[in-house]
This record gives sequence, structure tokens and C-alpha cells, in this order.
Amino acid sequence: MITVHARAIFSPEGPFKLTTIERRDLEPHDVLIEIKFAGICHSDIHAARGDWGPINYPLVPGHEIAGIVTKVGSEVTKYTIGDRVGVGCMVDSCRECSHCHRGDEHYCLNGNTGTYGAIDRYGQFTQGGYSTHIVVTEDFVVRIPDAIALDAAAPLLCAGITTYSPLRHWGAAPGKKVAVVGFGGLGHMAVKLAHAMGAEVTVLSQTMKKREDGLRLGADHYYATNDPETFKLLAGSFDLIVNTVSAAIDINAYLSLLALDGALVNVGAPAEPMSINVFPLILQRRSFAGSTIGGIRETQEMLDFCAEHGIVPEIEVIAAKEIDEAWERVLASDVKYRFVIDISTMEKE
Amino acid sequence: MITVHARAIFSPEGPFKLTTIERRDLEPHDVLIEIKFAGICHSDIHAARGDWGPINYPLVPGHEIAGIVTKVGSEVTKYTIGDRVGVGCMVDSCRECSHCHRGDEHYCLNGNTGTYGAIDRYGQFTQGGYSTHIVVTEDFVVRIPDAIALDAAAPLLCAGITTYSPLRHWGAAPGKKVAVVGFGGLGHMAVKLAHAMGAEVTVLSQTMKKREDGLRLGADHYYATNDPETFKLLAGSFDLIVNTVSAAIDINAYLSLLALDGALVNVGAPAEPMSINVFPLILQRRSFAGSTIGGIRETQEMLDFCAEHGIVPEIEVIAAKEIDEAWERVLASDVKYRFVIDISTMEKE
Repeated sequence: MITVHARAIFSPEGPFKLTTIERRDLEPHDVLIEIKFAGICHSDIHAARGDWGPINYPLVPGHEIAGIVTKVGSEVTKYTIGDRVGVGCMVDSCRECSHCHRGDEHYCLNGNTGTYGAIDRYGQFTQGGYSTHIVVTEDFVVRIPDAIALDAAAPLLCAGITTYSPLRHWGAAPGKKVAVVGFGGLGHMAVKLAHAMGAEVTVLSQTMKKREDGLRLGADHYYATNDPETFKLLAGSFDLIVNTVSAAIDINAYLSLLALDGALVNVGAPAEPMSINVFPLILQRRSFAGSTIGGIRETQEMLDFCAEHGIVPEIEVIAAKEIDEAWERVLASDVKYRFVIDISTMEKE
Repeated sequence: MITVHARAIFSPEGPFKLTTIERRDLEPHDVLIEIKFAGICHSDIHAARGDWGPINYPLVPGHEIAGIVTKVGSEVTKYTIGDRVGVGCMVDSCRECSHCHRGDEHYCLNGNTGTYGAIDRYGQFTQGGYSTHIVVTEDFVVRIPDAIALDAAAPLLCAGITTYSPLRHWGAAPGKKVAVVGFGGLGHMAVKLAHAMGAEVTVLSQTMKKREDGLRLGADHYYATNDPETFKLLAGSFDLIVNTVSAAIDINAYLSLLALDGALVNVGAPAEPMSINVFPLILQRRSFAGSTIGGIRETQEMLDFCAEHGIVPEIEVIAAKEIDEAWERVLASDVKYRFVIDISTMEKE
């Protein structure tokens, strides 16, 4: 086993403490990654607090991981020492089912293995990226293009792919009108990506507070959802709405903004069920759908797309000791637009 | 004005009474149709009882109309006296919006004109097919192929197109697994049509009572939804589920039966909202969608498809005086599988 430093939470309410955890010795296809940066995702907080089910503590969250390969297993072919690499929300899947075979490991029929809070094929409890090193099989590692700095790369591994995948799947492209609900970590990535794909992009945010940022980062239009006029004005407008808000919203109001054959896709997962009126769906053949992250091949494609189009998230780099404070600020929507932990500060108090 | 006989309901609870109503004199593009048969649709009952909104009485329901052209307006080009024709759920639309232009009159941006219970472009209250004659603009009339008897043709104008359209839109075809929820008027048509399109068809009915019929009419499999094992056995199975039940069902249980990228399409419209868990959508990129009838071109295509494949609904022909009793039996699901009124009995008590 390899003992590494990490920041772990020992109960739902925290706080984080510096600790050590064990990583497995390298299997033939494993790589050891020295983590340089780890993004803070809202879902880290949901998961750590048990909102989505019971959790074993201590837990080391973090599934937006960027680092350098420092050791490779005996049969590794894809990576070599010194490579700039990333790891996202999953570190394994069954690799045998039809979904895995077609590159949809994120929809593995036997369930993929989450980067933290899961039990892996070795029977070990997985621990995430708020740590100095991680061991991952090469098939679940992606290459970070040289054009993308490692700190900015980290959030692409979750916020980036989570928005890229539905935008691609539902055909964001020139001539398409795409709305993004929520302008936070995921939302601002959705805007940048949809804009780069050529779609006409509208932000639907609670207030006009971040309007200037929205337009600067690629939105064509920006509307406040606390203004009822917004829903009258935009009724029947959008081919695709990507909802990045995981809290409960008045989903029927948003469904009415879809054009014929439009889809509203939730990438956030509210714990409570949503109450859907069927008439607005029927009357314009609308869909309410969900999407989660993306497959490994698609994640690589997304990173290459970002490199080609000069897309990086807006980030605020913090020291490891600031994680608790950063979580509070995430919960208060007080971040522009993603916190990234500088892992070199792991041991500093 | 043309005075014609009809059966009308004068209050939500009925009963039907023989009466006369006025049809407009023929405009240049109108045809006068002598109605031979009119189907009874569950939505006639919903609408007449005000479940979907306030209704003006007396109301003549009926939007599954089959008959013969007996007079044509001065500029009619598509039909001539003696033609066998049908009229479905709409008798007009704006014909100017982008949806109408592409043949999606059922999704008219200005709202199509319902065959009954609507106000038409002449300011008249529309009255439906439980009557001896109707005047309709030729663009909203379809031709009934010779291979289809008029009594059997009637239910195709609503039950047929309502199921045909989503089956086509969501790609029912060889290699696809399609489930049909509910095995009544719409459900049995969905089974016949999906089978003819080459899909593998499963009926999900409350009990096994109609299993023999289901298999005979084209289903490959038949399961009872009152057996919890059904939901375990079929989890993640279907590419498409067409839900023909307009009452509230445990929609989340059905969503879990969808495969990756599968869609559950409601063609029934429950008055109450449905409570949807987002996780099952997200975890396999599933969709919950709605669909209503079809455009005029697609309705003609459906009739031609039925003629080509020898598809007709299972019907029970009744006399006009039996409408009240038939409605009670529809509400009790005691019909195999569609009542059709023989309009030649209109004046018989």
C-alpha cells in the first residue's frame, strides 16, 4: 500500500482534517498520479453530507483531479512518467457490458465505480482527489492537452464533461437555441461550451447580478428568473434547456420555455421528486430528461475541444486548509465560478 | 346554415339527447361529409365533463369521424362527391405558423381548432362527430383507403394517429423494444402498429386478463403491472414506452423500465401533475415526454400504413341511443376495444 496525505471529512458537518489514506500498490495497468489540483464540486458536499445516501467516514471527496503521472504499472501502454493527466467522477466500471463496450462507461449496466465513496473491484473504499496522490487504472485516465493549465483543467473533469455531454447529445449547434439554468460552476461551463458549439445561448439566472460575466463568457442573452416577465417573453423559445440547478425549481415554468420537440435536461439531481404537468409536454412534444457526466472517450474529446477553442473554467485557487470555508461559499453561491484546491498546500495549516 | 341531427350532452353528467345543430354553409374549400360512423374516445368523456377546463353546453363530442363526401365547395380540389373520408381531432389551424407550414398542424403555434368544444375561425362553437353531417375545410380531411371499412376507420382518426405518431417519432422499428402501458382503445392500436413497424412489443397491463388478446393482436410479451416482479424483471429493458393511461400511475416505476436513452411518452393527459424522481432519468439518460395526435399528412400516412398492413382496430358498433351506456362501460374499461357509433341510427330511440 502507498500512504498519502489527504483532507478528509469525519462526519457530515465536518470540518476537514489533514490525515493519511492508503492507495493500492500499482496493478499492471495502474498509474500513480501526483495530484496538483482538485476542483470542488457542489456534489462533493451533497455526497459527503449523506444527501444521496449513507456514507462511510472518513471521506476524501474530489472528482475533478489534475496531476502528473509519477509511476506506471508493468503493462501500462497509454501513459508514461511526466504525462499531464486527469481523473473525473469514475475510476472504473465493469468494462464488460454493452454500455461499457460502446464507451458509455458512465452508464455502465453494473454501475461505474465512483472516484470517492464507492467500493472498487478490490473491495476497497474509494477516496477522491482532495489528496496528494491517487492510483487509477489507465483506462479511466484522460490526457490534459498542453494548452490547458492544470489548475484550470481540474473542473473540466466534472463540470466540463457534465455539460459537454448533454450539449453534444441533444445537438447544440448553429441554429439551435440553448438555455442554461443556473450560472455557477456547471452553468458557466455550459455557456462557454454551447457558445463554442455555435448555439445561441441564453442564461436563466435568478437575478441579473452576474449578467456582465454571462455575456462576457459567451451568452447571447441573460434573463432573471425572479422576473415573471421572463417566462412570458421566452415561452416556447428553446430547443434545449440544460438545468444545472440541483435544488428544486418550478420545473413546469421552465418546460413551457421549450419549443416543439425541445428537451429540458437536468444535470443536477435534486433529492426531492419534481412535480411535472403532463399537458405542456404533450402539447409541444417536449421532453424532460437527465444526463450524467460522460464516457472516457467523450471526456477526452471534451478536453481536446476545450484546448482547440481556448475554453477554460473561471477558477479561484485556494489552499487545502480553506476547504471548509470554500464549501460554505459554494452553498451560498459565492464563487466565481469554481474553487480549485492547490494540492501543494496539502500539509500547510 | 345546414341543420343536422346530433346527440348532445347538456350538462357534465348527461344524459345524451337527440337534438339538431347548425353546420355552416360551405365555404369555397369546405366539404360536407355525411357521417357514417363515429368512434367514442375516452377523452370525449374527460372533455364533456369539464375535466380539462370549462365547456359550453350543449356539446356534441366525437373526433373519430368516418363518412362520405356529399357536397363540395366551389374551390375544392382534393375531394369529390362519394369519396370515403375521415376527420380526426382537429378541423383547422392557423396554417401560417412554422409548425403548420411543416405539417405539424397539431402543434400549431396559435393552437389548432378542436373538432368539438372549440371556437373556429368563423366564431362558431365547434361540434363533433356524434352527428349526421359535418362541414370541414378540405385541408383537414383525410382519405380512407378502400381496404379499410368505414366503421373500423373511425377510431384510427384519434386512437390510431395518437399512437402511430410517437411510435414513428421515437423510432419503433426492428431491433427496438417497445412497451405499451394500458391495453384499451389506444393501447391495442399501439400494439398492432408497433408490431407492424417491426418492433418487439410488450404489453404492460394491470392484470393478465386480456393477455390472450394482447398476444393475438401482435404483442410478443404481456405482463401484469399489479405484480411487483414485473418491474424487477423488466428493469432497464425498453427503448420506448408509450403510456396510454390517462389516470395517474406510479410513473417512476415505469421510468425504471427504460434502457439507456429510452423515452417514456405519455399520450394520455392526467389532470394531476406527476411526481418524477430525477435520479432514474440522470442515471441512464432517460426521457419523459408527451405527444398528441399527428399532423394531417402524418394522419394520411397512418391510414395508408394501416391499409397496407391490414391493421384495423377491434370495435364494437353501437346504436346512437346507447352512447350513455357505452360511456359508462368506457369508464369501467369494459370495452374491446373501441365503441363506434353507427350514425344511421341517430334518430332511433
